[in-house]
Amino acid sequence: MTSPPTIAVDAMGGDHGPNVVVTGALSAARRFGIHVLLFGNEPAIQAALGQRDTEGVLVDVVGTTDDIRMDDHPAQAVRRKRDSSLVRAIQAVKDGDAAAMVSAGNSGAVMAGSLMTFGRIEGIDRPAIASYMPTVSGRVLVLDLGAVTDPKPAILVQFALMGQIYSRYVLDVANPSIGLLSNGEEPGKGNQLTLAAHQLLKETPGIRFHGNVEGKDIPLGTVDIVVTDGFTGNVALKTAEGTATLLFEILRAELSSSVLRKLASLLLRPAFRSMRSRLDYAEVGGAPLLGVAGTAIIAHGRSNERAIENAIGVALRSSEQHLPARIAERIGTATHPAAVINGVPTNRLSI
Amino acid sequence: MTSPPTIAVDAMGGDHGPNVVVTGALSAARRFGIHVLLFGNEPAIQAALGQRDTEGVLVDVVGTTDDIRMDDHPAQAVRRKRDSSLVRAIQAVKDGDAAAMVSAGNSGAVMAGSLMTFGRIEGIDRPAIASYMPTVSGRVLVLDLGAVTDPKPAILVQFALMGQIYSRYVLDVANPSIGLLSNGEEPGKGNQLTLAAHQLLKETPGIRFHGNVEGKDIPLGTVDIVVTDGFTGNVALKTAEGTATLLFEILRAELSSSVLRKLASLLLRPAFRSMRSRLDYAEVGGAPLLGVAGTAIIAHGRSNERAIENAIGVALRSSEQHLPARIAERIGTATHPAAVINGVPTNRLSI
Repeated sequence: MTSPPTIAVDAMGGDHGPNVVVTGALSAARRFGIHVLLFGNEPAIQAALGQRDTEGVLVDVVGTTDDIRMDDHPAQAVRRKRDSSLVRAIQAVKDGDAAAMVSAGNSGAVMAGSLMTFGRIEGIDRPAIASYMPTVSGRVLVLDLGAVTDPKPAILVQFALMGQIYSRYVLDVANPSIGLLSNGEEPGKGNQLTLAAHQLLKETPGIRFHGNVEGKDIPLGTVDIVVTDGFTGNVALKTAEGTATLLFEILRAELSSSVLRKLASLLLRPAFRSMRSRLDYAEVGGAPLLGVAGTAIIAHGRSNERAIENAIGVALRSSEQHLPARIAERIGTATHPAAVINGVPTNRLSI
Repeated sequence: MTSPPTIAVDAMGGDHGPNVVVTGALSAARRFGIHVLLFGNEPAIQAALGQRDTEGVLVDVVGTTDDIRMDDHPAQAVRRKRDSSLVRAIQAVKDGDAAAMVSAGNSGAVMAGSLMTFGRIEGIDRPAIASYMPTVSGRVLVLDLGAVTDPKPAILVQFALMGQIYSRYVLDVANPSIGLLSNGEEPGKGNQLTLAAHQLLKETPGIRFHGNVEGKDIPLGTVDIVVTDGFTGNVALKTAEGTATLLFEILRAELSSSVLRKLASLLLRPAFRSMRSRLDYAEVGGAPLLGVAGTAIIAHGRSNERAIENAIGVALRSSEQHLPARIAERIGTATHPAAVINGVPTNRLSI
């Protein structure tokens, strides 16, 4: 019998503290039959565990002493706070003690720590943060969401290829369509970056390039993957989150403006709850850091128990699918187009 | 007795055709006591007018023969289709026959036509499209929304100054707060453009610079004005519009999933209607083209009668306030900082 996979969890990350992370991690351990390593302040974690049923669950605690805060400078914090839960969880993956790590803490620090500890995948210039956003029909993978603010055009092609592999192996979308975020659908619309990237994407073998998409196409779910620079992606993600917040604020105000409305909305409470859950950007799953030679999943700072559980599921699936190796292979194929010319059809180029 | 101001309206613009534009224009003529000049296909406009009560309303029709379509190349269309409703309405402003123009047609063509016909205001390198977006507490002015995709940092300062003047004289916000859209609130967050623009805005006298804002701050209404490049602004606007559409889709699906829910939501129909109206990006008012030496207001392609009426109101107010002259004066003040040093306090620098 082989031992179950181990996932390292930064128990101190997230706005809601260790209780929420520990509860989510226990649910994940039970649901996926995995071993969970909880990194952080040992008394706090033990206290959280004490309140829960841990019978038959594979969970261990690794005590750490340093604390990386949300407002710490990412790279400095990673360098100075070696005994933080965030750094130790990444190190556990590097050392082979865990297959992947999850943190809802300082996302810049997860990125900096992963980059320093795992290094980049060969052929990838800049790792990207990818995440789902909710759509009319389900969800869309968007990358980058803030790792690379001024990429060169070729880096957007790397993002497209990494998104393709993630989508195929973690999300089971065999041949995902890829859109380039721009200020208009026409190929001639865009800024200097996207005009050049559009051309490169059109020439990239083995991808289903849809062309330019607009901001509205993210929530409308026009494509499976939206590729953009980290500055624009971050603005789009946060604008969508803020707009959802605005809508619920207006809905609440409208529904509480009279007794009749209050009564009618009581009947609809389950409908509103389900709506909120479908639009909860924190719950749609963890955001993988793609392009580093190890598996790190960033969970939303506002993650609740369910979001942590989902992020651990994503970490498990990414490690089972050997994502870094698959990305390395895909990048290698795409950057040796000679193979295409030698009689191999484009659609055979996908790994 | 002086004659009432005249507003030129492109009656052929917009997704819903001349009927909607004509109806909105008649409402505006009545509401504001102005003279409206309707440009476009004369039989179509007369037919629309024939269905309405025009008693006591100052309205005239100017027949035109060319037709600029939504998918026409803006600059080419303006150059070739001289007798289109869009070009003729702009020309009427230039010739002094109207104080301002409104079009819900091809926005690129309105921009190209205004730029060619009016020219730029001295000191402005690139005109910008500004528009409101709905917020929790009211609305926020965002610019640019697509006119300038790759601005230099100094151009974002011009946008801030133009937004300030528009906000002060058209929206009656005496001292509006100005945020720079970025991927994080900290001054160190941003891409090369915003990092440089942040520094310039900090040093600009006579503005209330809030610092960086994130995408979520647009719908949350953190500041009065959000300054950004046209690429990012366009993505943010369309992401917000699409997210609102997504929300209403999910709401509709949830509320029609059972008979009980359908009945309860019947009672709440007025609440949902009011919510939709507060979130209608087409209705929040016309988008002024700032930085050209004449007044042109771009209405949303999806404009209904009320949106057209609102856009004409914005056109009237902008012309009454001599917006181009005020912008020229403000730009002159801001770019001659010597006046600041000579003992004039910064807060006296605003015109």
